[in-house]
Amino acid sequence: MSPPESPLHTLRSCLAGRPVGLVGLGLLGGSIGLDLKARGVPTVALAHRARTVERARQRGLADVVSTDPAVLRGAGLVVLCLPLDRLLAPTPQLLSALPRQALISDVGSVKGPVLAAWQAAWPGRFIGGHPMAGTTAAGVDAGQPGLFQGRPWALTTAETTTPSADLQLLQALVSVLGARAIHCTAQDHDHAVALVSHLPVLVSAALLHTVAGERNQPIRRLAESLASSGFADTTRVGGGNPRLGVLMASHNRQALGQALGRYREGLETLEGLVREERWDQLCAALQRSQALRQQMIGP
Amino acid sequence: MSPPESPLHTLRSCLAGRPVGLVGLGLLGGSIGLDLKARGVPTVALAHRARTVERARQRGLADVVSTDPAVLRGAGLVVLCLPLDRLLAPTPQLLSALPRQALISDVGSVKGPVLAAWQAAWPGRFIGGHPMAGTTAAGVDAGQPGLFQGRPWALTTAETTTPSADLQLLQALVSVLGARAIHCTAQDHDHAVALVSHLPVLVSAALLHTVAGERNQPIRRLAESLASSGFADTTRVGGGNPRLGVLMASHNRQALGQALGRYREGLETLEGLVREERWDQLCAALQRSQALRQQMIGP
Repeated sequence: MSPPESPLHTLRSCLAGRPVGLVGLGLLGGSIGLDLKARGVPTVALAHRARTVERARQRGLADVVSTDPAVLRGAGLVVLCLPLDRLLAPTPQLLSALPRQALISDVGSVKGPVLAAWQAAWPGRFIGGHPMAGTTAAGVDAGQPGLFQGRPWALTTAETTTPSADLQLLQALVSVLGARAIHCTAQDHDHAVALVSHLPVLVSAALLHTVAGERNQPIRRLAESLASSGFADTTRVGGGNPRLGVLMASHNRQALGQALGRYREGLETLEGLVREERWDQLCAALQRSQALRQQMIGP
Repeated sequence: MSPPESPLHTLRSCLAGRPVGLVGLGLLGGSIGLDLKARGVPTVALAHRARTVERARQRGLADVVSTDPAVLRGAGLVVLCLPLDRLLAPTPQLLSALPRQALISDVGSVKGPVLAAWQAAWPGRFIGGHPMAGTTAAGVDAGQPGLFQGRPWALTTAETTTPSADLQLLQALVSVLGARAIHCTAQDHDHAVALVSHLPVLVSAALLHTVAGERNQPIRRLAESLASSGFADTTRVGGGNPRLGVLMASHNRQALGQALGRYREGLETLEGLVREERWDQLCAALQRSQALRQQMIGP
């Protein structure tokens, strides 16, 4: 029995000498570029602005960076690392820049609407992707090596129509970047990220609003000065990019609305336990949340 | 003009050769002990169990560790690093172990009830304290060097009855540990921590319950596998020690209840914006939370 191929070897043989194309060199595009470059996988990148191109070249985000769509011509796989609104309304320029023979993927945080848009606009092969990795950083200086290490990366490949060679190529890319591929339908993805990604943004933002809404000014200032690591952690995602938050909410409105309703019910239960001083039941509820987090995230 | 004294120098001269006493060697007591030892401040510690004493000696958490209350006899300052329930009901054994000439402080996360209990039970000097530093770790192995570095440490010294020498001693201790002393009344403290410490625990726990309550099992499992750093951060405090959570809630019930009510209103506002697709207003709300976090926590 021969040993299993390494993901890097698989990626190289699937690409057969063609580069990976990146469209957009923000946090995600830049991070993919840095990691692929470090592993010797050839990359080409299309950026919107001349200034981005210049900075991306300085940072070595890809082997070739250009504002000229022709840069993508020879790519075997193109990953669209664009904001959700630009993914949802691909321009004729973008569509004509993409090589027909290449597999196209993306990194958008909502998958149903992206797949619908691309199924309508793009005659070639497309598999949706979503790396679950984010920081508050954005722009051409945000990309960092190792961003995807150990992170989940959803691939909307559950449709039976996905060719297995395409799946193998994309899975190899994800593995080379150190991420774990999670296969699911676009609908299930959107439902699941409403719970673990989009809901936390609003839950966390509301916490910041509550402190800011404290009408007693000295208490508000005291609260701000006493806020420490726990508050910083709980509010991190609520302090993220507002535009990204609105894009997520508006394109995943139904699942997010459902999650918000369920969350409110759960919080009302806890509020009732506090109001009625049912401490044994509150303790049981907090034991449950402790065990759940242990199981989901680890210690 | 002579240069200002260093906090370590002030602490040493206030103590005049007497050691700092610690009661309890869990996360907070152990961390205080390690830092004081590293700075050459003599420490003595009282622990409840022989096994804790043995392990504390191995770890070097204090110069002298014992289950014998007499260990505290010569201390100039004693910090009670006990769980809130034990702080609220000091035993006769504990009270008789404390030296009458020493300044007593504590690290309890609620201050009104602690001050009330100690004003009733203790004839000597007492200043309440609360370092805003926590990890999920607990027990004799939890203490770590540098835990308080840069963290706020509330001191309930706003009462005019606090002797300034006592204040100077405690403030020197806090500074030597690298923390920032924040002076406030017990009532203001409890109101403020309801917002930035106790409310986040329930907000975060409810998020875990929402994921766990997803009735569609495959979606629940998918959500669990897609949960990443954002979800981990938002749920950290909700996965903490349940007993501590209940002690905080039960002894700060009124302020927490009020904070929960305000929070629920704030969240309902955001829910309404999503339901009614008022994206500009949602964007403004998220811009506000981004700016608030920047201002409170930094980038």
